[in-house]
Amino acid sequence: MERPVPGGLRGEKEEEEEEEVERVLVSEHSWRPCPTARRRVRGCLQWVKRQLFRVGEDWYFLFILGVLMATISFTMDIIVSRLHLAHMWLYREIGDIGVLKYLSWTLYPMALAAFSTGFSQSITPHSGGSGIPELKTILMGVVLEDYLAIQNFGAKVVGLTCTLTCGSTLFLGKVGPYVHLSAMAAAYLGKMRTTVTREYENKFKQHEMLVAAQAVGVATVFGAPISGVLFSIEVMSPHFAVRDYWRGFFAATCGAFMFRLLAVFNSEQGKAGRAAHAPSSSLPSPGGIFGVLTPKPTPSFLSPFPETIAAVFKSDLKIDFPFDLLETFFFLILGIVCGIVACAYLFCQRWMMVAVKKNRLTAKLLATDKPVYTVLVVLLLASVTFPPGLGQFMASRLTMKEHLISLFDNRTWSLLAPNASGVAKPGGLWQEWDHPSATIYGTLTFFLLMKFWMLILATTLPLPAGYFMPIFIYGAAIGRLMGEAVALLFPQGLHSEGPPRPIIPAGYALAGAAAFAGSVTHAVSTALLVCEATGHLGHVLPTVLAVLVANAISQKNQPSFYDAGIIVKKLPYLPPIRSRHIA
Amino acid sequence: MERPVPGGLRGEKEEEEEEEVERVLVSEHSWRPCPTARRRVRGCLQWVKRQLFRVGEDWYFLFILGVLMATISFTMDIIVSRLHLAHMWLYREIGDIGVLKYLSWTLYPMALAAFSTGFSQSITPHSGGSGIPELKTILMGVVLEDYLAIQNFGAKVVGLTCTLTCGSTLFLGKVGPYVHLSAMAAAYLGKMRTTVTREYENKFKQHEMLVAAQAVGVATVFGAPISGVLFSIEVMSPHFAVRDYWRGFFAATCGAFMFRLLAVFNSEQGKAGRAAHAPSSSLPSPGGIFGVLTPKPTPSFLSPFPETIAAVFKSDLKIDFPFDLLETFFFLILGIVCGIVACAYLFCQRWMMVAVKKNRLTAKLLATDKPVYTVLVVLLLASVTFPPGLGQFMASRLTMKEHLISLFDNRTWSLLAPNASGVAKPGGLWQEWDHPSATIYGTLTFFLLMKFWMLILATTLPLPAGYFMPIFIYGAAIGRLMGEAVALLFPQGLHSEGPPRPIIPAGYALAGAAAFAGSVTHAVSTALLVCEATGHLGHVLPTVLAVLVANAISQKNQPSFYDAGIIVKKLPYLPPIRSRHIA
Repeated sequence: MERPVPGGLRGEKEEEEEEEVERVLVSEHSWRPCPTARRRVRGCLQWVKRQLFRVGEDWYFLFILGVLMATISFTMDIIVSRLHLAHMWLYREIGDIGVLKYLSWTLYPMALAAFSTGFSQSITPHSGGSGIPELKTILMGVVLEDYLAIQNFGAKVVGLTCTLTCGSTLFLGKVGPYVHLSAMAAAYLGKMRTTVTREYENKFKQHEMLVAAQAVGVATVFGAPISGVLFSIEVMSPHFAVRDYWRGFFAATCGAFMFRLLAVFNSEQGKAGRAAHAPSSSLPSPGGIFGVLTPKPTPSFLSPFPETIAAVFKSDLKIDFPFDLLETFFFLILGIVCGIVACAYLFCQRWMMVAVKKNRLTAKLLATDKPVYTVLVVLLLASVTFPPGLGQFMASRLTMKEHLISLFDNRTWSLLAPNASGVAKPGGLWQEWDHPSATIYGTLTFFLLMKFWMLILATTLPLPAGYFMPIFIYGAAIGRLMGEAVALLFPQGLHSEGPPRPIIPAGYALAGAAAFAGSVTHAVSTALLVCEATGHLGHVLPTVLAVLVANAISQKNQPSFYDAGIIVKKLPYLPPIRSRHIA
Repeated sequence: MERPVPGGLRGEKEEEEEEEVERVLVSEHSWRPCPTARRRVRGCLQWVKRQLFRVGEDWYFLFILGVLMATISFTMDIIVSRLHLAHMWLYREIGDIGVLKYLSWTLYPMALAAFSTGFSQSITPHSGGSGIPELKTILMGVVLEDYLAIQNFGAKVVGLTCTLTCGSTLFLGKVGPYVHLSAMAAAYLGKMRTTVTREYENKFKQHEMLVAAQAVGVATVFGAPISGVLFSIEVMSPHFAVRDYWRGFFAATCGAFMFRLLAVFNSEQGKAGRAAHAPSSSLPSPGGIFGVLTPKPTPSFLSPFPETIAAVFKSDLKIDFPFDLLETFFFLILGIVCGIVACAYLFCQRWMMVAVKKNRLTAKLLATDKPVYTVLVVLLLASVTFPPGLGQFMASRLTMKEHLISLFDNRTWSLLAPNASGVAKPGGLWQEWDHPSATIYGTLTFFLLMKFWMLILATTLPLPAGYFMPIFIYGAAIGRLMGEAVALLFPQGLHSEGPPRPIIPAGYALAGAAAFAGSVTHAVSTALLVCEATGHLGHVLPTVLAVLVANAISQKNQPSFYDAGIIVKKLPYLPPIRSRHIA
């Protein structure tokens, strides 16, 4: 196996077949696990050695991949959090002059986004967008030249870091580009391996490693090893042997352990060397899910470890079976609403992508001056989210992570609102949503209306960015609005059995996030993702129900978000097999 | 579509293709979701109607399947619990005469097992064993005549009920036969559908429905809709398009909701009509996982609802991230131990199945007098578990469900032991394990040693029975022993970071159960199963680690439990593709 013979692959295959036959013979006739006489002659020890080496290869490879991606994710999170804190400090310290405040709010993300676009596009044109549509095409068997070249790696890392630092102004996420990064790393490691072992490239092995890489990418970002793997499979490789998924699990688990080790190391360093900076350095967005950090964290998020992997954002729902059977009806409606909104979103988003390409002005800008286009769009988005302006009606001072934490809050906002003073205090994140003249219903509705077009506009930007997280938060807001409305309708709660149970709007937020994100990406595993990320399994049933209903509606009417990308970019495309789909 | 034309199927296919082409055209050029002019002429309304009908067909079918299987499972649980309570009553009331006690302990399961064997075998020879090996063969494309015939249904239901009533004496479970039942129901419903619609049988649809049926079977029994689906896929159909699994999810969710509805209905009936019997009727083994019931339930199990689906047995571990990084090492060792024990178990079990067939006496008995063989084996097993005899060293008074509850207890037994009086009290299940002269380490070790051969012996019985649950409990005991040992070694707990954390042996029990069950069945999703069934996600990472390590060892050395069944029964068998496996 170590000889540099061209026929090495074939020889290995034959050996494997021989072994296979022997194994079956052994298991059928002699029932003994120890090697047969023929094999004993060949040398038992040698056989064991060879086996160990062959197994080891894959394991080592996956281990390195998981550890590497976790390290990069961790470093990126720390840098993003520092840069974000710097922006917040600037905005706070600049004084109360409106113009200065406005400039400090808008110029920072504009500069970052322009740099992100310019830098990444100057190195390679492949680094824009999420990368998942292209990866899906590659996994279908089409060779996209240079898409996995390692040259893109640095450009995408730097670009993504800048994009994430823009935070809730841009409202873009991390998943897509991180999957692309992971795939690039896997491809490069694979090439290194073939150089070292001097074997021909094995296409099957390459493919398997790409699948594992995408799983690592998703799992590292979500901090949810199991559902991350499932989601990546569902979104990217529809025809996949389930038995394979141990690779993804193994690599993702290595990554998760590495992440925890880094957190420990980082916090100890922080304690010893620079106690003053400890809060900022010991608070890297735990699972790395949001890329941006809580500048003034609520007490439960002060310790970085409890939340690290098991529960990225806790919803603190401690009741075992926290919904009444009658509420199923409302979860069903929530699923239908999410499905319909997802269809509208997918349609508008695709229309927008084509419109931007066809419109003369934008087409010219995108062809020659991408950073200018980015600056213009970011200026618009930042102006809309400016906190003293329209931003006050859409809780724009919160980061994306805080958005999620506040939406998954297990208290009922409508019950809290009358007691609160109406002035937002730090610590009570939900109060950002409680505008004195608009009430929580007003702000939530306004948020949904505005973010609808803002999200679609943001997806046209030619910088490295993920689109899953914004969709997820949007869905959580839909669910929260519905939950608060139901809680208003039934202040005493519903009870078909036992004592009356109060409505818990956070449960609706969970189901809404899963249903909307699931129906936009045509994935069912978002239901599990929500549970794993929050560490709360009580709402599994209604969540699965809502996800299925929403999926049925959107799969019937629209191609998924990633398929739409494939269509618009005119990548090679396999039409789905009709009967195998949900609708 | 409604016309009884023989070419109906072909016409439908052509229509589908046409629609597919149109859909792609629509999505590529006009970007409008509303139908094109050509379709508008055909009648938009008619199109919607047809679509709804075609979608509906599948949905209805899955809905009926889920509801039906949940109802049967629920009814079976109630009957089993009643019969088990009757046995316990008999054993308690018969007085203190040793011989009578012995007879009442042994005769009851002997009679039930003999009846189970005789009844099911007299109707059909297919009803013995778990049925999963045969189903796996069918899903690979081999036609096994009559194996899914509806005639087997009644025999298997009755036989399984009797087997489950034997409880912890026989130590057999419910999963396998229930999957078989579910597949039979699906095949029958499929035939009914083709009779009604007068279409030819569609092989693809049949296959898809069987996959959904197996998912329903597993999910209904475990009360874990998500991981049940994954486990069933992993164990039974290795080459499976992941996008398909919405069918399983949908049917399993319907089943879970039905289960809850039945529980509500049953408890209200119990309250109104027969308050005296309420405790027994309102306590059907919630998720149906164990088939047998707690005769004297602990307080948290008094209410049937909180545990219904979200958490079948709660382990009450409320810490978010409850293990120290250094403990990873012990979880790794646990994985290795579980893998090695699983290899030994698989080897001995396969050897036993062949030995029973080859030995003249047993072969003759099994050929002609199956009930006699059953009676002899059950007599041996029941004598060993007789509580005043050897049974006192292996907590044999507990049912299988209580075994699990006690092993997943979140307290550390070794800390509790010195405070306890040494006499077992009802309510403190763990005290059954604390024998005054043997200590908990002794009883756990004895339990593991004895159950090893008892389990293997029980798998040779020709009655309908599942083998997953016993393996699961065995693994939990391995983990518990290891956890208690670690807690003894480090009474102060380990700490690489922050304050010292005490060792939680229940976490080891969880990981052990998942690792052992996973390595025997060659499945990775048992890690998720454990989490979903206990509602505790904190130990996800070490559990996944242990499962992967154990799987690597057992997949390397032994065929899985179900593959062994296929080999021994000489069913058609596809050898696994080497490179795609974990080792």
